[in-house]
Amino acid sequence: MDSDSSSFIDLRSDTKTKPTPEMLQAMISAELGDDMNGEDPTVNRLEAMICDLLGKEAAVFACSGTQSNQMGLRAHCLPGDELLIHELGHIAIFEGGAPAILSGVSCRTLTGERGMLTVEDLRGKIRANDQHLTRTRLLCVENTTNAGGGHYYPLDQLTDICNWAHENGLKTHMDGARIFNACVAGGYTMKEICAPLDTISICFSKGLGCPMGSILVGSQEAITHARRSRKIFGGALRQAGIVAAACIYALENNIERLQEDHDNARFLAEQLAEIEGISINPEHTETNLVFFDVHPERGNAMQLSAALKKEGVGIGAMGNSTLRACTHLDISRAQIEQVPAAVRAALKAGLDQYQGIATGPYARG
Amino acid sequence: MDSDSSSFIDLRSDTKTKPTPEMLQAMISAELGDDMNGEDPTVNRLEAMICDLLGKEAAVFACSGTQSNQMGLRAHCLPGDELLIHELGHIAIFEGGAPAILSGVSCRTLTGERGMLTVEDLRGKIRANDQHLTRTRLLCVENTTNAGGGHYYPLDQLTDICNWAHENGLKTHMDGARIFNACVAGGYTMKEICAPLDTISICFSKGLGCPMGSILVGSQEAITHARRSRKIFGGALRQAGIVAAACIYALENNIERLQEDHDNARFLAEQLAEIEGISINPEHTETNLVFFDVHPERGNAMQLSAALKKEGVGIGAMGNSTLRACTHLDISRAQIEQVPAAVRAALKAGLDQYQGIATGPYARG
Amino acid sequence: MDSDSSSFIDLRSDTKTKPTPEMLQAMISAELGDDMNGEDPTVNRLEAMICDLLGKEAAVFACSGTQSNQMGLRAHCLPGDELLIHELGHIAIFEGGAPAILSGVSCRTLTGERGMLTVEDLRGKIRANDQHLTRTRLLCVENTTNAGGGHYYPLDQLTDICNWAHENGLKTHMDGARIFNACVAGGYTMKEICAPLDTISICFSKGLGCPMGSILVGSQEAITHARRSRKIFGGALRQAGIVAAACIYALENNIERLQEDHDNARFLAEQLAEIEGISINPEHTETNLVFFDVHPERGNAMQLSAALKKEGVGIGAMGNSTLRACTHLDISRAQIEQVPAAVRAALKAGLDQYQGIATGPYARG
Amino acid sequence: MDSDSSSFIDLRSDTKTKPTPEMLQAMISAELGDDMNGEDPTVNRLEAMICDLLGKEAAVFACSGTQSNQMGLRAHCLPGDELLIHELGHIAIFEGGAPAILSGVSCRTLTGERGMLTVEDLRGKIRANDQHLTRTRLLCVENTTNAGGGHYYPLDQLTDICNWAHENGLKTHMDGARIFNACVAGGYTMKEICAPLDTISICFSKGLGCPMGSILVGSQEAITHARRSRKIFGGALRQAGIVAAACIYALENNIERLQEDHDNARFLAEQLAEIEGISINPEHTETNLVFFDVHPERGNAMQLSAALKKEGVGIGAMGNSTLRACTHLDISRAQIEQVPAAVRAALKAGLDQYQGIATGPYARG
Repeated sequence: MDSDSSSFIDLRSDTKTKPTPEMLQAMISAELGDDMNGEDPTVNRLEAMICDLLGKEAAVFACSGTQSNQMGLRAHCLPGDELLIHELGHIAIFEGGAPAILSGVSCRTLTGERGMLTVEDLRGKIRANDQHLTRTRLLCVENTTNAGGGHYYPLDQLTDICNWAHENGLKTHMDGARIFNACVAGGYTMKEICAPLDTISICFSKGLGCPMGSILVGSQEAITHARRSRKIFGGALRQAGIVAAACIYALENNIERLQEDHDNARFLAEQLAEIEGISINPEHTETNLVFFDVHPERGNAMQLSAALKKEGVGIGAMGNSTLRACTHLDISRAQIEQVPAAVRAALKAGLDQYQGIATGPYARG
Repeated sequence: MDSDSSSFIDLRSDTKTKPTPEMLQAMISAELGDDMNGEDPTVNRLEAMICDLLGKEAAVFACSGTQSNQMGLRAHCLPGDELLIHELGHIAIFEGGAPAILSGVSCRTLTGERGMLTVEDLRGKIRANDQHLTRTRLLCVENTTNAGGGHYYPLDQLTDICNWAHENGLKTHMDGARIFNACVAGGYTMKEICAPLDTISICFSKGLGCPMGSILVGSQEAITHARRSRKIFGGALRQAGIVAAACIYALENNIERLQEDHDNARFLAEQLAEIEGISINPEHTETNLVFFDVHPERGNAMQLSAALKKEGVGIGAMGNSTLRACTHLDISRAQIEQVPAAVRAALKAGLDQYQGIATGPYARG
Repeated sequence: MDSDSSSFIDLRSDTKTKPTPEMLQAMISAELGDDMNGEDPTVNRLEAMICDLLGKEAAVFACSGTQSNQMGLRAHCLPGDELLIHELGHIAIFEGGAPAILSGVSCRTLTGERGMLTVEDLRGKIRANDQHLTRTRLLCVENTTNAGGGHYYPLDQLTDICNWAHENGLKTHMDGARIFNACVAGGYTMKEICAPLDTISICFSKGLGCPMGSILVGSQEAITHARRSRKIFGGALRQAGIVAAACIYALENNIERLQEDHDNARFLAEQLAEIEGISINPEHTETNLVFFDVHPERGNAMQLSAALKKEGVGIGAMGNSTLRACTHLDISRAQIEQVPAAVRAALKAGLDQYQGIATGPYARG
Repeated sequence: MDSDSSSFIDLRSDTKTKPTPEMLQAMISAELGDDMNGEDPTVNRLEAMICDLLGKEAAVFACSGTQSNQMGLRAHCLPGDELLIHELGHIAIFEGGAPAILSGVSCRTLTGERGMLTVEDLRGKIRANDQHLTRTRLLCVENTTNAGGGHYYPLDQLTDICNWAHENGLKTHMDGARIFNACVAGGYTMKEICAPLDTISICFSKGLGCPMGSILVGSQEAITHARRSRKIFGGALRQAGIVAAACIYALENNIERLQEDHDNARFLAEQLAEIEGISINPEHTETNLVFFDVHPERGNAMQLSAALKKEGVGIGAMGNSTLRACTHLDISRAQIEQVPAAVRAALKAGLDQYQGIATGPYARG
């Protein structure tokens, strides 16, 4: 059985969702124009909707979360600047070194519980004004945390670190690739979450189920700057309304249902906790990401991932012993219910028949 | 009358085309996957089709022509390198200084007839190997030339300059945003045109009528490198097949019909040549771009453009006295036939009622 | 009393040394030429001497250690690459973010005892080959460690990590700003220390007592590349032999005497260990850097530094409670013997009269 | 006879001068400190002298003219900006592509008589504010022009183009590598010449005869920014006063005597004009650079340069048929008087015995 099969239960990522017929219908019905020149009415409508929803001045559509993150970073930082970020942050790890390449910016990586930062983690981490040192200019937070485990920032904690940043002359950017999961799980409004942030990047091709699309939101000045970056990165499109229409559809239809993904994730976590050879604290599954560990004497994460694929379930390795299962729009409760048996079967068959890389999927050496 | 009106004849750019119902149908029928991981079957099919069509090893889908150009450039050049390009080249002028920002690369701009270069124009322009000098690494050609007037390279000339480049240790990249117009107008196959090039960037949202999409084609090595650049620029998408399907539709349906655009353009050029106050040599209209000048005593290009808008015709200024009309998929012969009267009316009404910028749309000072 | 006074005992840095009359005589007697063109015989002689001493193919003179480090880094890395370095490494902290600005390179900072790395610290830290990730390309080691406490790498440990790096496809660069201190303290030859390194940066204006000057050493290929970087950074000089002559003088006269600096440092460390309110393990003073802490109830490092200045002793703060005293060519045993009394006097007078910055000299927030 | 011989008349460059005994004496007598920390009294004195001489707020010592030019450029420009410069400008051609590498800045190269620009040359060359275009931010002028022929800007022309730049929102930077030649030849004060400039880079190792050294001058804000760039480029030194002392000596002793170099240059030009096979208009030799052409039927510039070397005279090729002779501090009138005979002898012996590169010393292909 392989990952293309229709009965394959693909929990590898919430980026795997495919547009529904209703979303496709919305796309082909969209009124279109040339967005490079600001003439696409659907893109303009999406940008206005998002400004309204987040309580911000301006927004600009982008191709991907990586692109809108880098546009945001470049709006705040000059070459020689440094940003503060959790060592598990997507911008620090999973964007190909883009901060250094595209903006001449260094990432100062910090530690903190479950991918999140507190004022205590940040204190003393701003460089003094000295020619030997980078200029600390930006605090980046990821909400929910991906590699940190799908956690959402308690509103107080988020507000505290942003206030601390602003009091110390820093700007604040949120990588909100899964920000709607944070809203739903935390019971917050987008306005509440986004109030302390200078810029927010949102991704539509994760939990919201769109084929592509992202948006950067912030002050008029930041977004005007970001439009230039978008053009330079090759992200300024023509009749982009066709994808923006999917984003609008998702905003109107796919947010509240994220609770189902969270319920499915918690259910899966609780089931996995029952399995011998697997370690997981179900309390830590707050949103749609289920992180769990395979006991080293059974094998490693790469091996279990390979074994699960054979059982018809896609779950990726995230570290030596850690795997991540991701619930989303295309995964039903019935499918989730099949997963524990697959894990048991995989473990029972034995993992040593699979070749794994000792240091996990993202590392070697 | 404004540019949103349905009766508006929009000749400002071939990027203004909107997808037809048939193209939209192809888009929503596409089989999709996660293209970031190479799992989108429609993107994979498009990339394979293009390799076959151009006779090249590998291809990678991109969001825009700017993006695929910059991916190509970065595949060939290191920081401190220099590329040779016509002073009217899109990469040199209209990509926001991206070569310097994204790749640390300098553009050495050369002159040549109608936006094109000959070996004679190039001779002596490669820097010696000396620490004071950049390393000349790449020849960029644009085919057809945009700001140069919509001209296509005669195959001999193109082959000659590429051979000269290769003999002198340079790589060659073609900005083929309108390469299908060159094929149709010159009677060449894509394979013939692309043979002497190391990489070719193609744009689907110009004459081919797609809402977005581009592709970079070349050796396996160059394209593997370009995939990393695409990710870094934020151009790696998820279910990109939805837009790739439009590109496939266009490849199968919209190439031969470019002859209509060329015929319309030549017809318009001939009509404009009859108008007092307008200068144009219709022989120079080889493809779908019609460049013409307004006599300075009548006013400038910005003023005539404003006056034409009022007459229901969109034609943009490209310089102090130069305008560009662009024929495309959404423009019929009947619409073209209305344009000369609009120009006459605009001139007759007098241009001095419109404020223009003396130095044209792209310059000040 | 201030730091310009002749009786001031300046232990702030070994960069504070002034050339002796003998060194000055060597400088003005040097045979000179235009080093930009390779015509300066004294620079050429220095480069040859260093190649011979280190057992490497090629060398290039540079203005400063920062410059030669960045030239080395740029010889090994491309934009998008990442280097592995201790979180206290000079290249990571004290070069103004140059890796990102000048080379588009990210620093991955690691922890390890006293500023040094072991294979255990490094294992699993090389990124997999994946478009999401930087390419790990270079291991940087600092020997002796500055912010780590003046420690020298045991030869086995250094060889092990470099072998590990090479086995895993990485290059190795040593920031050898105080490499001669490592030689003298460890009883190693330069050839032994440098054997496992691809490039080594040496600084002449620290323990060796020159007014300026550095050199980068490595393979012919790396150094040829570095010469271009030097020109680009504005580090290619004309009659550089005048400063190279000081470097040659220092190589011939000032290396063995580093033992005196080490003895002075250890003596000072032992004396400081006797003082109430100061914490230090004298065993950790291996070379010419003496790191010690002031007990927080007495005050912080910035305050003690200010108090010591009033007592005629220059010792800088390196952290909240940590200070660094540096012995060097211009500091005699007699001067060192006066320091403990000055520390006692400063503590006795009380530190609360001095304003300090809570987070130390290099941080705020 | 080769270029190391003491009787060799080296007119290849004014960078070839060696410090005189008096200058060396000044160097070793200098009071020194750690310039990285602003503690070198001689550097501080030089910076203050230059501020006074030029009528500017602040100055910072640098290693080379390339370095101070790039520091100035980086003080004015952000990545994505463009500077306007004559196509023969040193910053555009001879600094290894540094604007793109170090600052992400593009050079827009313009034409103008003898390496200089007029308002007429500049008009219309500022890009409009549009996401497709770079932002034109800086006008760079070179005075005297090097590759342009050693010409100095008439004060009116210089003031006019700087005023035009400021009126259009640009900053102005002068590459004043040979600015003292301009002062002496034009009879201007440094204050007059520098008044319309925002930053000025001065080089001490050309006509002034120092072994190394440069300075950037401008507003306090620009220079504070430049100090960071200097550190990042590895140009922040320690006891830099030893070279600054040479610069002070040169300011006090070597400026007025530049008239001798100019007289020698004009004398040489007049003598060369008499030689059959050589073309030169002596009126165009305004300062210390003598540009002349060899008639193509005799051979090319590379060949004549090689032949002259054999005759004991160093004169470099600057193009296919163009050579440059440079008078300076180490060249006496008696030496100059020997040059015409050497040229005649070289031509008489015939140039075809020397292999030359058809496209000159800086180009191939």
